[in-house]
Amino acid sequence: MPTLVLIRHGQSSWNLENRFTGWWDVDVTEKGAEEARAAGRLMAEKGLDFDQCYTSFQTRAIKTLNLALEEMGRLWLPVEKDWRLNERHYGGLTGLNKAETAAKHGDDQVKIWRRSFDIPPPVLEAGSEFDLSADRRYDGIAIPSTESLKDTIARVLPYWEATIAPDLKAGKRVLISAHGNSLRALVKHLSNIPDDEITHLEIPTGQPIVYELADDLSATDRYYLSER
Amino acid sequence: MPTLVLIRHGQSSWNLENRFTGWWDVDVTEKGAEEARAAGRLMAEKGLDFDQCYTSFQTRAIKTLNLALEEMGRLWLPVEKDWRLNERHYGGLTGLNKAETAAKHGDDQVKIWRRSFDIPPPVLEAGSEFDLSADRRYDGIAIPSTESLKDTIARVLPYWEATIAPDLKAGKRVLISAHGNSLRALVKHLSNIPDDEITHLEIPTGQPIVYELADDLSATDRYYLSER
Repeated sequence: MPTLVLIRHGQSSWNLENRFTGWWDVDVTEKGAEEARAAGRLMAEKGLDFDQCYTSFQTRAIKTLNLALEEMGRLWLPVEKDWRLNERHYGGLTGLNKAETAAKHGDDQVKIWRRSFDIPPPVLEAGSEFDLSADRRYDGIAIPSTESLKDTIARVLPYWEATIAPDLKAGKRVLISAHGNSLRALVKHLSNIPDDEITHLEIPTGQPIVYELADDLSATDRYYLSER
Repeated sequence: MPTLVLIRHGQSSWNLENRFTGWWDVDVTEKGAEEARAAGRLMAEKGLDFDQCYTSFQTRAIKTLNLALEEMGRLWLPVEKDWRLNERHYGGLTGLNKAETAAKHGDDQVKIWRRSFDIPPPVLEAGSEFDLSADRRYDGIAIPSTESLKDTIARVLPYWEATIAPDLKAGKRVLISAHGNSLRALVKHLSNIPDDEITHLEIPTGQPIVYELADDLSATDRYYLSER
């Protein structure tokens, strides 16, 4: 039976400051690092093991994976990093905290951007301090200037189909360390969650989510590992 | 011009205890972790950058790489891990400290095993506490029971030729985090060092060694980054 575990990175410095982060590359806090280690210990205790790992191009997800793997004695596992597992790009909201955003745009508008499925925030202005066009990690990649959740799903799922799903079908046990919205994309797809519900699904940091999958990769069960 | 940097893992717990380690998977010490971070900071300060990283299946080399990359803001770089970059397998000496080994086998014999090019130590007995045959990281791999440096070279170089050298020829800048003897294998090859000299070449922990290479990958220069 294919096994898939999803983990959202541990608390980041901007989670703590309640700022929109998106593609900006902030680090995990010490609490976030400990969440990652605890997740690794929990997976080891519960007897989970993996053959292939995936993560994004972002430090907070990569470090979460590395710290969890270290606790499991599995640093040697192959890890593939890909920008398509990055967090949703929050466009012009990047760097703003929730209070600043509400003061600037109004509470109702912020709620629309955060909770609508297909309405992206304003674009990130070129030349903004959060503009990543000079970051060589994204050379050759069309960096979005903003994304709705729908847009995020539209670049996560092709990667899932082309790269991750074939590994699972080949019998590999897969661990994915990623972000709130790139994981929402996968959960929506695997658990058939409607557009208007997925934006309300909270994915907690550092909590391994276990999927049990049929051979066709339809989900037969999904649960937090800490609850079994 | 192809750029290649080699780095031997930071001090491990068994480096500190002066024990033969080989394929046994000991961790770096806090000093070793700091050596790795310092190497990363030095590479960043000197303007070195990379496109592809390689390391072994062993925690001390993987962690050294991860810590250095983190300091460079380059955790997102692709990393390939392969057992052929592992340390020389020390056979039946694994786990013994140098004094115990000398008491058991005599100083002269120990010197022969440490410094000869092609005389392997006694084999590691099956069922020894250091027997790795049940370690799933080596599933499908013919784990050696002991190795001379010549044996180590015989499995490092095919990996170099098949995987690393093509990356360099394609213009990728390559960082390899590995071990005293797997790096000796590469240095011997690249710098044409004779059999009886290579066993005396000490490769310090945590010191980036820079190779400047011609297009055919012959070495035009080799130096410690800290000395430039």
